Amino acid sequence: MTESPFDRVILGDLVLPDRVLEGGWIGVRDEAVAAIGTGEAPAARDTADHRGMLVLPGLVDGHMHTSSSTGWSGIEGATMSAAAGGVTTCVDMPYDVPVPVTDRGILGDKLEQVSRLAHVDMALYGTIRKDGNVEDIAGLIEAGVCSFKLSTYEYDAVRFPRIDHPTMLRAFREIAKSNLMVAIHNEDQELVERLTEQAKASGETHPIMHCRTRPPITESMADLEIFEMALETGCHVHIAHSSLARGFDLAEMFRAQGARTSGEACIQYLCMTEEDIVRLEGFGKCNPPFRTADEVERMWAAVKAGKVGYVSTDHAPWPRERKQYKGDIFAVGAGLTGMQSFAPLMLTLLEQRGLPVTLLASLSAERPARFHGLFPKKGAIRVGADADLLVMERGRFRFDAREIRDREDARWSPYDGMEMRGRVAATYLRGTRIWDGKEVLAKPGAGRFVPRQHGDGFLG
Amino acid sequence: MTESPFDRVILGDLVLPDRVLEGGWIGVRDEAVAAIGTGEAPAARDTADHRGMLVLPGLVDGHMHTSSSTGWSGIEGATMSAAAGGVTTCVDMPYDVPVPVTDRGILGDKLEQVSRLAHVDMALYGTIRKDGNVEDIAGLIEAGVCSFKLSTYEYDAVRFPRIDHPTMLRAFREIAKSNLMVAIHNEDQELVERLTEQAKASGETHPIMHCRTRPPITESMADLEIFEMALETGCHVHIAHSSLARGFDLAEMFRAQGARTSGEACIQYLCMTEEDIVRLEGFGKCNPPFRTADEVERMWAAVKAGKVGYVSTDHAPWPRERKQYKGDIFAVGAGLTGMQSFAPLMLTLLEQRGLPVTLLASLSAERPARFHGLFPKKGAIRVGADADLLVMERGRFRFDAREIRDREDARWSPYDGMEMRGRVAATYLRGTRIWDGKEVLAKPGAGRFVPRQHGDGFLG
Amino acid sequence: MTESPFDRVILGDLVLPDRVLEGGWIGVRDEAVAAIGTGEAPAARDTADHRGMLVLPGLVDGHMHTSSSTGWSGIEGATMSAAAGGVTTCVDMPYDVPVPVTDRGILGDKLEQVSRLAHVDMALYGTIRKDGNVEDIAGLIEAGVCSFKLSTYEYDAVRFPRIDHPTMLRAFREIAKSNLMVAIHNEDQELVERLTEQAKASGETHPIMHCRTRPPITESMADLEIFEMALETGCHVHIAHSSLARGFDLAEMFRAQGARTSGEACIQYLCMTEEDIVRLEGFGKCNPPFRTADEVERMWAAVKAGKVGYVSTDHAPWPRERKQYKGDIFAVGAGLTGMQSFAPLMLTLLEQRGLPVTLLASLSAERPARFHGLFPKKGAIRVGADADLLVMERGRFRFDAREIRDREDARWSPYDGMEMRGRVAATYLRGTRIWDGKEVLAKPGAGRFVPRQHGDGFLG
Amino acid sequence: MTESPFDRVILGDLVLPDRVLEGGWIGVRDEAVAAIGTGEAPAARDTADHRGMLVLPGLVDGHMHTSSSTGWSGIEGATMSAAAGGVTTCVDMPYDVPVPVTDRGILGDKLEQVSRLAHVDMALYGTIRKDGNVEDIAGLIEAGVCSFKLSTYEYDAVRFPRIDHPTMLRAFREIAKSNLMVAIHNEDQELVERLTEQAKASGETHPIMHCRTRPPITESMADLEIFEMALETGCHVHIAHSSLARGFDLAEMFRAQGARTSGEACIQYLCMTEEDIVRLEGFGKCNPPFRTADEVERMWAAVKAGKVGYVSTDHAPWPRERKQYKGDIFAVGAGLTGMQSFAPLMLTLLEQRGLPVTLLASLSAERPARFHGLFPKKGAIRVGADADLLVMERGRFRFDAREIRDREDARWSPYDGMEMRGRVAATYLRGTRIWDGKEVLAKPGAGRFVPRQHGDGFLG
Repeated sequence: MTESPFDRVILGDLVLPDRVLEGGWIGVRDEAVAAIGTGEAPAARDTADHRGMLVLPGLVDGHMHTSSSTGWSGIEGATMSAAAGGVTTCVDMPYDVPVPVTDRGILGDKLEQVSRLAHVDMALYGTIRKDGNVEDIAGLIEAGVCSFKLSTYEYDAVRFPRIDHPTMLRAFREIAKSNLMVAIHNEDQELVERLTEQAKASGETHPIMHCRTRPPITESMADLEIFEMALETGCHVHIAHSSLARGFDLAEMFRAQGARTSGEACIQYLCMTEEDIVRLEGFGKCNPPFRTADEVERMWAAVKAGKVGYVSTDHAPWPRERKQYKGDIFAVGAGLTGMQSFAPLMLTLLEQRGLPVTLLASLSAERPARFHGLFPKKGAIRVGADADLLVMERGRFRFDAREIRDREDARWSPYDGMEMRGRVAATYLRGTRIWDGKEVLAKPGAGRFVPRQHGDGFLG
Repeated sequence: MTESPFDRVILGDLVLPDRVLEGGWIGVRDEAVAAIGTGEAPAARDTADHRGMLVLPGLVDGHMHTSSSTGWSGIEGATMSAAAGGVTTCVDMPYDVPVPVTDRGILGDKLEQVSRLAHVDMALYGTIRKDGNVEDIAGLIEAGVCSFKLSTYEYDAVRFPRIDHPTMLRAFREIAKSNLMVAIHNEDQELVERLTEQAKASGETHPIMHCRTRPPITESMADLEIFEMALETGCHVHIAHSSLARGFDLAEMFRAQGARTSGEACIQYLCMTEEDIVRLEGFGKCNPPFRTADEVERMWAAVKAGKVGYVSTDHAPWPRERKQYKGDIFAVGAGLTGMQSFAPLMLTLLEQRGLPVTLLASLSAERPARFHGLFPKKGAIRVGADADLLVMERGRFRFDAREIRDREDARWSPYDGMEMRGRVAATYLRGTRIWDGKEVLAKPGAGRFVPRQHGDGFLG
Repeated sequence: MTESPFDRVILGDLVLPDRVLEGGWIGVRDEAVAAIGTGEAPAARDTADHRGMLVLPGLVDGHMHTSSSTGWSGIEGATMSAAAGGVTTCVDMPYDVPVPVTDRGILGDKLEQVSRLAHVDMALYGTIRKDGNVEDIAGLIEAGVCSFKLSTYEYDAVRFPRIDHPTMLRAFREIAKSNLMVAIHNEDQELVERLTEQAKASGETHPIMHCRTRPPITESMADLEIFEMALETGCHVHIAHSSLARGFDLAEMFRAQGARTSGEACIQYLCMTEEDIVRLEGFGKCNPPFRTADEVERMWAAVKAGKVGYVSTDHAPWPRERKQYKGDIFAVGAGLTGMQSFAPLMLTLLEQRGLPVTLLASLSAERPARFHGLFPKKGAIRVGADADLLVMERGRFRFDAREIRDREDARWSPYDGMEMRGRVAATYLRGTRIWDGKEVLAKPGAGRFVPRQHGDGFLG
Repeated sequence: MTESPFDRVILGDLVLPDRVLEGGWIGVRDEAVAAIGTGEAPAARDTADHRGMLVLPGLVDGHMHTSSSTGWSGIEGATMSAAAGGVTTCVDMPYDVPVPVTDRGILGDKLEQVSRLAHVDMALYGTIRKDGNVEDIAGLIEAGVCSFKLSTYEYDAVRFPRIDHPTMLRAFREIAKSNLMVAIHNEDQELVERLTEQAKASGETHPIMHCRTRPPITESMADLEIFEMALETGCHVHIAHSSLARGFDLAEMFRAQGARTSGEACIQYLCMTEEDIVRLEGFGKCNPPFRTADEVERMWAAVKAGKVGYVSTDHAPWPRERKQYKGDIFAVGAGLTGMQSFAPLMLTLLEQRGLPVTLLASLSAERPARFHGLFPKKGAIRVGADADLLVMERGRFRFDAREIRDREDARWSPYDGMEMRGRVAATYLRGTRIWDGKEVLAKPGAGRFVPRQHGDGFLG
């Protein structure tokens, strides 16, 4: 043969699902992985030489918010930051300003924005309105949402409403007709509200009060109510973010009873503690809040025991102004940035705990892709999958929030200044380099919408 | 010796905790059981000859309402009916009209009425107000309440209020300082209200809609929320009436996690089904409602597996007028009479299922006495216990509601006309005959208040 | 009435199955317990005043050897010692010299000796010959044996043979037709023999070698083989003496699989350790041997967890000469005396561990009676049961082997000189005092054979 | 680049460990898999086009006998038949005639024969003599045996002896120092011998008596004794062939207790029943014998539940003469041929049960390779592994024993005439074609000894 069969060959230590293949190469053709090998690589039109570095699957962030603070224009910056962080698929939440994704029409509008603005691929959650438009669920599924999101807690009556028990049940029954998962923001409204009122009334508004007004039982009570409805309806119900190991135990307990239940951890619950909100003030506020160091240990035990569905960021790039603590922690927006620091931080935490780097590929790429019905197109380095790749250089690198590739006022991070054990040296989206370690090379619109690939469910 | 040591000797087949002692006798001295034997009885000033009949411990009805419909004056009739039914200890609910038992002062007032009106002994539950006066809990305990009762569902804002999550938690924390049990009326307010509104709005107000608007999940969701708070607080939390076997399974599951959880069945959930509310209309309405025949089977399986704390009546002698269905089941009062039929019906159900009569003594005397801290003074025929006795004649007897020994408008029963396998031939309260099979021999005031005997808890 | 209904009244603190009734009395009529009470006792022809002492059910020693060393004449001394020890029922092993109880004819001969010689009541095990006469099993059952005994280990080819796997299976199949239990001496022949040969060959014949040549695995392997045959045949198979907590765990494991398996501890395995055989030399030799202090702790944990069927003595009154160590532990007879020290030692061990005295009644009277089908005639102070009673005086008393009421050369004990927390102040057999704390009052022949009372099995 | 990087490219539908990659290719370089891909393959010096066929990893037969009947010369024919059957690694038993592999010297002699005679690669078991030469175990491990084999049953005192309990324990203790597995032939000698004697004595020597004299309990009793010794010693103990699902359950039970236990099925136990020995007579005799159809179902349930370590053949190519039934089944040699039919039969059984073909790769290549410490060199199509491949053509093909590529008198099979759902179209050993669907292309000596690759254990 006279012509090379591959568009590009990428060299490096490949992090496959079950091992690291040292001195490996990936042959890319037509945006996908066409071959995997070791030794001398076949000829290709282009060779990307990352020998000595880890080549991982591009991360799939299963839980993030591009548009919850600034509307759909936020897609542009958030996905640029994703590209710089090696996240090649953003599974975006539906709680958008001013219009959450509650029907097929709105989804269509958002898809248009995705196609104009996204730097990486995006999958989308759908949701329903507070008044319970479950009749729009089927249309959202047809149009390709990968999953749904609902809440037991009302952050905002329009954007992020509490869905009451009767409506929740109806929604679960409708979603259960598909195998799609519904992720639930899990906090008990009545407890949080009362404790917050009491704190405010007594003038206790300093940062730690954010933790005190949302104690662990506010989460576990919400977990139980959604899981009982899961058991009743057959719907796959998923804790959108468990800050507690108990959340995963409850999911197991209900699965043993025949329910389809699961849960995810966000990376902050694997490293941050109550001390950190005292230190970070508003920039450490998220819901659920940080817990104790003991709880962090229990969370890792859950990870090691295989109980954690996947690890995400809950990335929410609030304008810096909205995060500044001015004496009242309750007035600050809840949510953290996390996408650009995601890969280095996971690598760091795994290394500190002596866990293999394959867990990074599993917990933050393959498993979220499976939960959201995007696997095997997304989530792993396998022949046939999209050639989405994250190249990591090991070493000691300080994470600098000023280098976040989002709009200026989103360049803050709870991890600012932290020493990481690696950095993202390159990112490839479907075979094309979109980050070279210094610049985002992709243009807005390089990313595409990834509809759910199939109707098979996955419980982990 | 020249004088008989016993005040009275009672002859019959004695139902002891673990067996039936045929041809036995009980020697009573100073209101208590002083000896148990067989064969020729020792001399006594009086001999009550029930040879050929079953002599059981007087029943302890762990859940009943003397005063929820007509106020404390209801004590008189309800306890007279108890005497005629062989119930020698009424554990009375605190949801009294017009003043529920929410502090020591009110309890004092109720105790005065008990001492004036009661025909049998009474133990009393305490409760709190909707606004959460947990500071009164310690006083109620000191004054001798045996247990507490709270609700997740609001039947009446004053008499029978929903206690919200924050208040419930505070109450549990306070009660947990003692080993007392708190029984919870377990229905999810939000689900029941919405389903009821929808039914009313669509004009569906016939009897079966009472079941349809309170489906099983309304109970199990309430069970889970109270049990999670039990786990959090260490408080002994008890389902006041589980109409579902799942309630007992959940109690076990939480116990396995270290919580102190339990539940009771009411007798109606061991025999009545949805068909019965269609037949009985308003006279078959209670909360939770009757379930399916399959569920009744599961309830008995739970009984056999030893999962059911005890069996009670939830006796609530509404005036007949309040129970009459006039086209709107939602307008009817919820609650059934059941005390006078309790012993014959339990005997009948056990016999139909081939279960030993010792279970009647265990489930409706010894175990409720243990749960409420009244054992060993109450609940079993043992040397040293109060000589409270229920004498049953086996045979076929039709239960006639007109013979209920309560005020005239409380002489109705869902079991009216049912053929029973036995009848209450006599009742003894602390050694004194108070029912002879035809007449209540006790006068108002014969009954006494039984304070909780000790601080030991009992989980079954 | 002018005449007392009771033959005798016995006063004391009664140890009932579930509690101690202080200041109680027992009314005896016609050899049985006719009444139990407190307070002033009814008149009786005779009053035995043990006020201030514990009145327990006479012990049932579920495993002992009257005739394994000296033949049936041993019944006389062994049962005299039983009377002095408060053991009112001896369940005697069939491994008699020179003729083990292997058919109905031999049983008849032994019964004759029992009626002539016994001071307390006796129930009897049957067995089979090494050559497998399973056809004689039915006759033994008809004639009243309570249980069977077989062995995986050959102590003597005639008296105490190893039954091989095929014969064991046939015997189990035959015994399974009844509900009788077969107790198995559980040691792996092949391991014990080889280890013993090796020890002898290397001249290691000092006392500790008895333990080293019978390590724990020799027991557990035997346990497994008999339990697998139990599962196969449906026969109730019982470890005749587990010196290991693992034995009880295995019994549970096989029960969970549907087998009918159980096991018993002998009292020596609850207090003696390897150090004791070093100290006692031949007088500390028994099979299985003493284990470690840690194992003793695990045994007690098994007792507390309710896993131990019952506690017996394995009493084997070898002539002193046969127990003397003269440089070769393997030449010494295996077996300990234990009946006269049984009650005081159990009381002492329970007290040292803070366990209630009701456990003595349960583990060494009620439960062995149930396992051997002798309950409720034997095993508990209950109305209707035989008035077999053990009266214990609490205090500090030194156990003196010279006071053992057996023939002279059987007056030795591994517990000689030990300080006990109580002594046997009196023993009653069917209402008659047979021991008054100083003298055995019964004559040979006072004891009777107690045939199995019924065919119901009991697994604990 | 001007030169092709691959020695050979092989095209087909690749059966990878977790999926089938349709239209794939494998690039071979230096005997190993250097790349895996789809689409147009890179240039190579040679292309083997199996498009439309399944390309599986060459099978690893974890249990087979080349030399148990005819001595080491049997290696030649057995491995030729392996090549024709797609088995590229034979894990050969040590029970060779006349000299079993009991020390390093004998192993050396056998290795010489392997290097002269083998057509496929071979790994070797070691064993010990009946007299217990455990001191030779370390040398065998050093010299590269992958595992050990011992027996509870004596087939032949020299070649295939019963190892008694004391010797077994010593051997386990020695082997436990490594992580190597010891596979045990599991039948209770005492039961089998007695039942066989009885059958012979009564003249019952027809084929079904082979099953009747080795009932299931003969296996399970042996399983228990070896597993208890596994628990005691920490040694990885493996049932060499469980014909019973219970064997796998016991392995699980002991693993849960901390033992290192496992078991394997042979393919005959997944399809043959007692009816088949009646039909096949001597040619259906193997130890353990075939079981019931119900047991076959339970075996498949165990396979589906992931309890079965791996599936092997126990291939034993007895001369035809030794298998002929002439009125006495006990006179016939025990063992079946099975290697050449292995792949087609597994494919057929999986297809009949609707199970994926990936299970063939897992159960008969990857898992045995892991158990024997040969993975990842052997057992799966992965970059870096030996390019051992089995090419299967789907279709309907009748299995004809005459085409077995062994010496003439080994050309018999219990599966003769059976319709298979596929045939072995080609076999590659380390990248070289050794079978083309018609002829064995390899010469004796093409195969190599594969020593154990590492000391890591694997329990499944």
